[in-house]
Amino acid sequence: MSKFWSAAIRDLTPYVPGEQPKVTNLIKLNTNENPFPPSPAVEHALHHYDTARLTLYPDPDSTELKEALANYYGVERAQVFVGNGSDEVLAHAFMAFFRQEKPLLMPSITYSFYDVYCNLYQIDYQHIPLEDDFSVALTNYTTENGGIIFANPNAPTGRSLSLDEIEALLQRNTESVVIVDEAYVDFGAQSAVALVDKYPNVLVIQTFSKSRSLAGMRVGFAIGHTELIDGLERVKNSFNSYPLDALAQKTAVAALQDQSYFEQSVAQIITTRQWTTEQLSELGFKVIPSATNFVFAEHRFIEGAELMGYLRTNNILVRHFSRPEIDNFLRITIGTQEQMEALVACLKQHPDLG
Amino acid sequence: MSKFWSAAIRDLTPYVPGEQPKVTNLIKLNTNENPFPPSPAVEHALHHYDTARLTLYPDPDSTELKEALANYYGVERAQVFVGNGSDEVLAHAFMAFFRQEKPLLMPSITYSFYDVYCNLYQIDYQHIPLEDDFSVALTNYTTENGGIIFANPNAPTGRSLSLDEIEALLQRNTESVVIVDEAYVDFGAQSAVALVDKYPNVLVIQTFSKSRSLAGMRVGFAIGHTELIDGLERVKNSFNSYPLDALAQKTAVAALQDQSYFEQSVAQIITTRQWTTEQLSELGFKVIPSATNFVFAEHRFIEGAELMGYLRTNNILVRHFSRPEIDNFLRITIGTQEQMEALVACLKQHPDLG
Repeated sequence: MSKFWSAAIRDLTPYVPGEQPKVTNLIKLNTNENPFPPSPAVEHALHHYDTARLTLYPDPDSTELKEALANYYGVERAQVFVGNGSDEVLAHAFMAFFRQEKPLLMPSITYSFYDVYCNLYQIDYQHIPLEDDFSVALTNYTTENGGIIFANPNAPTGRSLSLDEIEALLQRNTESVVIVDEAYVDFGAQSAVALVDKYPNVLVIQTFSKSRSLAGMRVGFAIGHTELIDGLERVKNSFNSYPLDALAQKTAVAALQDQSYFEQSVAQIITTRQWTTEQLSELGFKVIPSATNFVFAEHRFIEGAELMGYLRTNNILVRHFSRPEIDNFLRITIGTQEQMEALVACLKQHPDLG
Repeated sequence: MSKFWSAAIRDLTPYVPGEQPKVTNLIKLNTNENPFPPSPAVEHALHHYDTARLTLYPDPDSTELKEALANYYGVERAQVFVGNGSDEVLAHAFMAFFRQEKPLLMPSITYSFYDVYCNLYQIDYQHIPLEDDFSVALTNYTTENGGIIFANPNAPTGRSLSLDEIEALLQRNTESVVIVDEAYVDFGAQSAVALVDKYPNVLVIQTFSKSRSLAGMRVGFAIGHTELIDGLERVKNSFNSYPLDALAQKTAVAALQDQSYFEQSVAQIITTRQWTTEQLSELGFKVIPSATNFVFAEHRFIEGAELMGYLRTNNILVRHFSRPEIDNFLRITIGTQEQMEALVACLKQHPDLG
C-alpha cells in the first residue's frame, strides 16, 4: 500500500497465472499450453526475418493479420480486432462494453480473470451458478444486465455449449453485449463466429495461445459487428497504438496459414484426451466431459490438493484451484501421448492407487 | 457510435500515430525511428531462437529483462517495471497514480497521448504553458495537483531540462507522483534515474523504440521506488499477465547488452543532428535546440503545412501538427547522414529557397 496509489488500485486483487517454472525437467500440464511446437512455417518466418525492419514501428492496425483472419473466418476485415493476447482483448472489451449501470452476468465458475477486470474497471457483476454437472445453463441468464460473458468451452470445467443454446440466448438478450470467450473452441466446440452477421451484440474472442501453439507470442483476436469492433479500436487507440509487435503479427499469420499442421495437432490432442479420460476413469477419477485441451477431474477418495502435491513431487505440474466448489478437482492439460502415459504411470504408483 | 458502448467510450478522442506507409521507397523522417538497425546481437538472438519454445507462455515477470535493466541502471530488480512499449507503461501509470481528486499537471505542448490517457481514465488535468522559447519551466508547476508528468527531452520540441531543475521540482512537490518520460533521453539529456533512490515519488519511463532501434518489438520500462513499481504491477496483473512476448524479452536483453553498438549509433545520430541543424539554419529555418533524435523547426517565411506537402511530394515524410501554437513547425527525425543530405538537397530545390 502506498499513499501515491490511486484509490481504486488499493482494492485490486490481481490475477495469478499458473506457474511458469524456470527448470526444464518437468512435465508441464498446468497452463493448458499446446504440447506441440508451432507450425514449421513459424520457424521459417522467424529465422528469415529481416531484423533491420525492427527499428521501424510495426503496422499499428495489424492489417495483414486482420486480413488473414477475415479470410479464414469468412468475415470482413472491419469485423476483426486483434490484441496482445486474448487477455488484452478481454480487458479492452470490458472497458468498451461492460461499464454499464446494470450488472454483468457470468458463470460462477469460469475464467477467473473476468472478476479481476470487473474490479479494475469498477464493473458490478453477478455470478450465475453452474448446474450440478458443471454445465452453463444459459436459460438462467434472464435478469436485466449490462452484458453477459461466458467461456465456450468453459474453463476450468472443459464443458461446452451448443450453437443453438447460444443463439437462443442471443434471441432473448438483445440490449447488451454478449461475449463468447472461445480460447479452447478448436478442440471440440462450435464457434459463435457463425452468429456474428445475424446478431450485432455478440463478440467472439479467440487466441493463438492454445490450438496454434503460440502462447509465447501473445496474440488474441475478436470477431463481431463493426460497431463492436469500432468500440474496441477506440479503447485500443486510447491505450496503445501498437499492441502487436512486428514478430507477433508475422508469426500469427504464418501459423494461421498452415491449416494441415493445425488440423493434425488438434486431432492428436483430441485422441490423447480420449485416452487420458479413459485411463483416469479406470483409476477412479470422475472426469468432466471435455471439449478443450485439458480435463477437469476429481478422484473418488483422494483429495485434489494432495494429488497435486504428489504429482509435483514427481515433477509433474497440474493446476489446482483452492475455491471450495472445485477444490477437489485437478485441471490437467493434455500433453503429448508420452507425457500423459507418464502421468498415468505416476498416478498408478500413488500408495492409495497401486 | 453504438448503443452497446460504455458511456465513457463515446467521448474518447483516440491518439493518431504518425503514418506507417506500406510503400518502401520513402525517406521516413516522421515517427522518430532510429535509422540504424538493431544491434547484430538482436539478429543473432532471433535467428537462433528455438521456435518450439513459443508454444509456452513467456515469463510473466520478464525476469531476465528486468535483471538486465537493473544491472544497467544500477538499481534493484524490484525497482523496474516493463511493458508492451512505453505507451502501455504510461497507460498503467496514469491508472495507478493519476486518478486523484486534484488535477494532473503537464506542459501545454508535449506528447499528445497524455491527454488521451486522461480522457480514457477520466482524469482531470491542467496544461501549464511553455515559455516563449518552448522550454518547460518546472518552477511554474506550483498548484495543488494529483500528479505531474512531463517529457525530458520534451516532444515535439526537443528541448531538455537539467537534472537540477527536476530535483528542485521534486523538493517542492512531495505529495504526488512525478513522471519523467525519457523516451529520447539517450540522445543528449540527463536521466532522472539518478534521483529515484532519493525521491520516492519520481517514476522514470524509457523505451527501446528510439536509441535501441527496437520500435518494432514494443518494449518500454519504468524505474522508481518499489512502492510505485508495486502499484504498476497491480494494474498490469489486473490487465494482462503476459504483456511482453518471449521474443520481445529476448531481443530487448540482446540490445541492452551491446553497449558499444548503442554508443556508436547514438553518437552518429548526434553528429548528424548537428549537421542538419546547421544546414536548416542556413536555409532560413529557426531550429529549436534538440537533445533528441529529431529537430523541431520552422521556416522564416514558408508555412509548415506547405513544406510538409512539398517534401511528401518528393517522397520525404516529416511530421506536422495542426494545433495553432506549433502549426508552422515541422518535426524532422534525424535519419542517416545520407537521408538528411537528401532532405537538405530537396529543400534547396524548393522554388522559394533555391
